[in-house]
Amino acid sequence: MLPYQTLDKKDLQKEYDKLWEAYQAYRARKLSLNMARGKPDTAQLDLTQEILTSFSTSADCLAEDGTDCRNYGLLDGIPEAKRLFAELLGNTPEELIVCGNSSLNLMYDTVVRCLLYGAGKDETPWIRQGKIKFLCPVPGYDRHFAICESLGIEMINVPMTENGPDMDTVERLVSSDSAIKGIWCVPKYSNPEGVTYSDETVRRFAALKPAARDFRVFWDNAYLVHDLYDEKDSLLSLSSLIKGTENANMVFEFFSTSKISFPGAGVAVIASSHENIDKIKSIMTVQTIGYNKLNMLRHVQYFKNAEGVLSHMKRHAALLRPKFEAVLEAFDKELAPLGIVSYTKPRGGYFISLNTLPGCAKRVYTLMADAGMTMTQAGATFPYGKDPEDKNLRIAPSYPPLAEIRSATEILICAIKLATLEKLIAEM
Amino acid sequence: MLPYQTLDKKDLQKEYDKLWEAYQAYRARKLSLNMARGKPDTAQLDLTQEILTSFSTSADCLAEDGTDCRNYGLLDGIPEAKRLFAELLGNTPEELIVCGNSSLNLMYDTVVRCLLYGAGKDETPWIRQGKIKFLCPVPGYDRHFAICESLGIEMINVPMTENGPDMDTVERLVSSDSAIKGIWCVPKYSNPEGVTYSDETVRRFAALKPAARDFRVFWDNAYLVHDLYDEKDSLLSLSSLIKGTENANMVFEFFSTSKISFPGAGVAVIASSHENIDKIKSIMTVQTIGYNKLNMLRHVQYFKNAEGVLSHMKRHAALLRPKFEAVLEAFDKELAPLGIVSYTKPRGGYFISLNTLPGCAKRVYTLMADAGMTMTQAGATFPYGKDPEDKNLRIAPSYPPLAEIRSATEILICAIKLATLEKLIAEM
Repeated sequence: MLPYQTLDKKDLQKEYDKLWEAYQAYRARKLSLNMARGKPDTAQLDLTQEILTSFSTSADCLAEDGTDCRNYGLLDGIPEAKRLFAELLGNTPEELIVCGNSSLNLMYDTVVRCLLYGAGKDETPWIRQGKIKFLCPVPGYDRHFAICESLGIEMINVPMTENGPDMDTVERLVSSDSAIKGIWCVPKYSNPEGVTYSDETVRRFAALKPAARDFRVFWDNAYLVHDLYDEKDSLLSLSSLIKGTENANMVFEFFSTSKISFPGAGVAVIASSHENIDKIKSIMTVQTIGYNKLNMLRHVQYFKNAEGVLSHMKRHAALLRPKFEAVLEAFDKELAPLGIVSYTKPRGGYFISLNTLPGCAKRVYTLMADAGMTMTQAGATFPYGKDPEDKNLRIAPSYPPLAEIRSATEILICAIKLATLEKLIAEM
Repeated sequence: MLPYQTLDKKDLQKEYDKLWEAYQAYRARKLSLNMARGKPDTAQLDLTQEILTSFSTSADCLAEDGTDCRNYGLLDGIPEAKRLFAELLGNTPEELIVCGNSSLNLMYDTVVRCLLYGAGKDETPWIRQGKIKFLCPVPGYDRHFAICESLGIEMINVPMTENGPDMDTVERLVSSDSAIKGIWCVPKYSNPEGVTYSDETVRRFAALKPAARDFRVFWDNAYLVHDLYDEKDSLLSLSSLIKGTENANMVFEFFSTSKISFPGAGVAVIASSHENIDKIKSIMTVQTIGYNKLNMLRHVQYFKNAEGVLSHMKRHAALLRPKFEAVLEAFDKELAPLGIVSYTKPRGGYFISLNTLPGCAKRVYTLMADAGMTMTQAGATFPYGKDPEDKNLRIAPSYPPLAEIRSATEILICAIKLATLEKLIAEM
């Protein structure tokens, strides 16, 4: 097998015809597979089934401070849940709030609070400051971008590197434009590339000199403990680095157990400085009397402590790793030699990011859709759904069973080759 | 015992001294009782303990449409939960969204959505319309008022009558001032008076001619099924009355199981017209992937249907009724003959509302606090915490055990008499 670039038009067309036949055969199988979302599979969910059978008596429902978790009370979460998450995040229980089942909900609400009440103590609400902007490392998480788009916040692309966002660009923009109020980050096993921010990147975040005093880093630590291998990526704690500095209030950190216990019924956490947490609580107390404490208690009773979570995550890794490896092995075998794509080999998280030649991603998406394969929409990894080079595809191998992953990857490889060949032939 | 008004100053002082001595005796007991919040007691929570022991296998976690409730999906709730709540609220599953554990959270979020996105399809966001106002029937629910105050929405008091808000005032204000965008209503067993809106009141709501096209009724149906007696108050369905009229989109209705199952771990619902629900979902999908579906499933598996909820509520009533009656019997015996207070005798809900002579409520609150009795803050039942006549007190008899309710009521009666005598003596 030779790289396509060395073939002449006739040979390319021959290769294309052969692949098109194969593609039609795939289509004829009328498959329906989904690699669109970072969704755990049933076997992963089964790992924590036991969480759901607690609480046969009322005594089982008491938090360690005697709070009846069935009743009202405790806006910021039960003490043992706060302690567990503080241990995981490397901060203190006073620096976080344990909430409902969705960290996305917390991020949305946090942006809304900044808009309506200001980002920090005595800050002007963002909504009273005219046009505001967020930096968006790309490729990134579509739901982050959807929050900005929905709330009318302008988004500016910042390229990702293998060490995290391009910090030269971040520093230049953040220090020069006071309309830039935020940046979205998935600092460990980033969505979709699986990049973990290097120590230098995190240190440069901590040392930012924002033009806007109310600039905030939205640190979505979704995959903090979602390692695929025993040899884990390590991430510096941004919240530790900024403590006591003039950037002490610059970070909102988010975490959830969605991909530790249950995506539909986990527990989510927001962490920040004392000053920020105090402000958030003063507003949150108007919004709710409290989140589901029984669900917090379920989680603490099951996981016990950070160590319990970490050892549990190895069981997830054992289920996920073969799926990632199946995709990557096929890519290595079928695509790498052709020199027509680049892709990441993440050591954790939920995604593989693949770049086609420019102008091919949408076509791949369409070919896949026509063959019954649901992929993340091409473009979704960029603000406004616009991939300027139309080349990035996000692959989510977690949900389908391994056999289906293999089939889907086979078809994906075929679709990528077809789209590439169409481009190469058209350009000749 | 004679009404205080017939006594001369000397006799009043004598009575006062006697009561003061009794009060000091109460204080010496160093009690700590709480009648501040509408909080179910432990026996009530125990009624639904069984809800918490479901789901031993993964098959138990499937919704009727096959959705694995442990995983992502179904923004607006599982079908069987939507059907159950539609049956209770008298609308259709398409006209509601089943959410997290807090209807307060839904109300707050709904006001925020109106502020940022407009109240209805193609409406201007409230926040772009200058000063906006809400009507607040008083006395009312402090947490409703806190939402407005927090979000900078001006509040206008509207007096409550025994049939609901004074509709002459509501109609006059709503039809004449386009800055009035909303009204807070607890239409059945209102907080704090226990008033159920009459059929005429509900019909007049349905027939409002708002000056603002984006005026909305916030219909907090918190106590829809919370009857204390078999002979229930009945409430017309406002959503049915407006269907097909030009006010079809005028109502947001809220409901929760906080006082049916668990205040800390129930299920909350927002209901409205198709058009409004569509708009809410289009924004909510940016805010969250979905609410806790396992908790919805727990509730449906336990209650089955509306009839299941209604029969369950009789068990709550059996626990609550004696507490309400203990308070009211003591009031009838000790306060009614004195002609110094008026109070409601609700047939449902969670509160008794008592009016002292003007200028006495805060003093009663302080006397109670000094004796270790936590009451709802005097003034809390009015916007900005300001009761213009300083006379309303909200009594929440649900949480303490019956014996404590009796003690607390005894002390409350003493405190009311003392505060009243202080006023009468000072005015002589």
